Amino acid sequence: MAISPAPADFAPLLFAGEWEGALEAAVELGYDAIEMSVRDPSDPVVVACDQGVRTHDLKLSAIATGQSFYSDGWSLTTDDPEVRKLLDARMFRMVDLAAPWEALVVIGGVRGVLEGSERDRQEQYHRAVESVQRYAEYASTLGVSVVVEPINRYETNYLNTIEQALDFAAEVGLPNVGILADTFHMNIEEADLACSLRMTGKRLRHTQFTDSNRLAAGQGHIDFGELGQVLREIDYEGYLSTETLPLPDSKTSAQQAIEHFASL
Amino acid sequence: MAISPAPADFAPLLFAGEWEGALEAAVELGYDAIEMSVRDPSDPVVVACDQGVRTHDLKLSAIATGQSFYSDGWSLTTDDPEVRKLLDARMFRMVDLAAPWEALVVIGGVRGVLEGSERDRQEQYHRAVESVQRYAEYASTLGVSVVVEPINRYETNYLNTIEQALDFAAEVGLPNVGILADTFHMNIEEADLACSLRMTGKRLRHTQFTDSNRLAAGQGHIDFGELGQVLREIDYEGYLSTETLPLPDSKTSAQQAIEHFASL
Repeated sequence: MAISPAPADFAPLLFAGEWEGALEAAVELGYDAIEMSVRDPSDPVVVACDQGVRTHDLKLSAIATGQSFYSDGWSLTTDDPEVRKLLDARMFRMVDLAAPWEALVVIGGVRGVLEGSERDRQEQYHRAVESVQRYAEYASTLGVSVVVEPINRYETNYLNTIEQALDFAAEVGLPNVGILADTFHMNIEEADLACSLRMTGKRLRHTQFTDSNRLAAGQGHIDFGELGQVLREIDYEGYLSTETLPLPDSKTSAQQAIEHFASL
Repeated sequence: MAISPAPADFAPLLFAGEWEGALEAAVELGYDAIEMSVRDPSDPVVVACDQGVRTHDLKLSAIATGQSFYSDGWSLTTDDPEVRKLLDARMFRMVDLAAPWEALVVIGGVRGVLEGSERDRQEQYHRAVESVQRYAEYASTLGVSVVVEPINRYETNYLNTIEQALDFAAEVGLPNVGILADTFHMNIEEADLACSLRMTGKRLRHTQFTDSNRLAAGQGHIDFGELGQVLREIDYEGYLSTETLPLPDSKTSAQQAIEHFASL
């Protein structure tokens, strides 16, 4: 389940700022792993949470990195050498944090948005490709993979669909770059969720079964039975995760999700 | 179909700024009526379009009013007496424009957003209720109805769901206040689209069958066959409309929609 060890400027996370409660709930509810949304990997609360994952006999499945854009305004598209240097250093530390767990580093909100003229946008897109190349090359030396997450049109203006994310990953052109599929975003962007999920094939490395209203699976109208069947068809070997709004509260949402997963 | 006679700061409209082409396409494709998104009802282009609807033997089904918020920042929640006066005058002219057609006046984006403390938000909500009461009271003298449209969380922070819109309409407490259901918003907000649509019952006065990706019905994953069945069950007598992004272009979208409607 997706949590934030520190308070966050991004809503759909459980137990924000309450990592100890998060880990206890994860153990109690039968989760195998947690995924952490991290702004600064050197933040003592992140280090403590990472250690807590070990002592609770859990695993770290993935590290979400969007807070660098949401809270600091740093994005993959930047043409400011100073910001690029800061963000590169931070993303490399994300990879270091992921390495002992073979966890994934997520390229989600950190992509930022494309702005300005068509030519400006092409340059920004190209800088995003190059940024992910730098991270993935470093990550490959430590056995870590990077995953690109399609995000719906209201939160960013590029890489909204699975197809666009696959094209982006193909431009990056490295074997340790895959796709994260979040069904909440897919419900808005994909004409056929099962078809799009099937299309990811071997590039699919991480899956968030979040319902249509961003609540736990089973609380909205997405047919997770059908999507679960697609995961079996494509021999998916990654985690099934839940990244939801903390409603009605964090623990209830985490419980609803894992109960629905068990029912599939 | 939903058009804008003038260019608009709101994307999901067909033929923005090209009302003559819109009316010709509507006639050619077999539409009975158009709905106009209007910023200023006294704008000569709006007057000309209204006249054009007559000469093309079409009808005007509804007037969308959100541009007053999107372009001018005027909203139902305002505590500025000057803005309230300007917006009231404009909304009354929307009712005048609707009257000869018995068209609906839509309360969509013009609601604005709730801001500040919990108490501020309650006051803003209450002002929105009172605003709709003023418009609906005036509208009732001319045989016009007002419809409240649930809009998804990314575009506003209140009246997102059908249930919330029904509660709001109940607070307004006038018989000529109903609901507009747009399936694009419902796909994000409603846990069960058919159930929510059924719940509107006699309050449902206008329906936009827009697909999950804001394209014409049939281009996304919404089951319009099921929703059409609900409309029959509740003896719906209003229009079936399409409010989509102009993709791949305005006319193609209008054609896709009406062909899908015919197939239901």
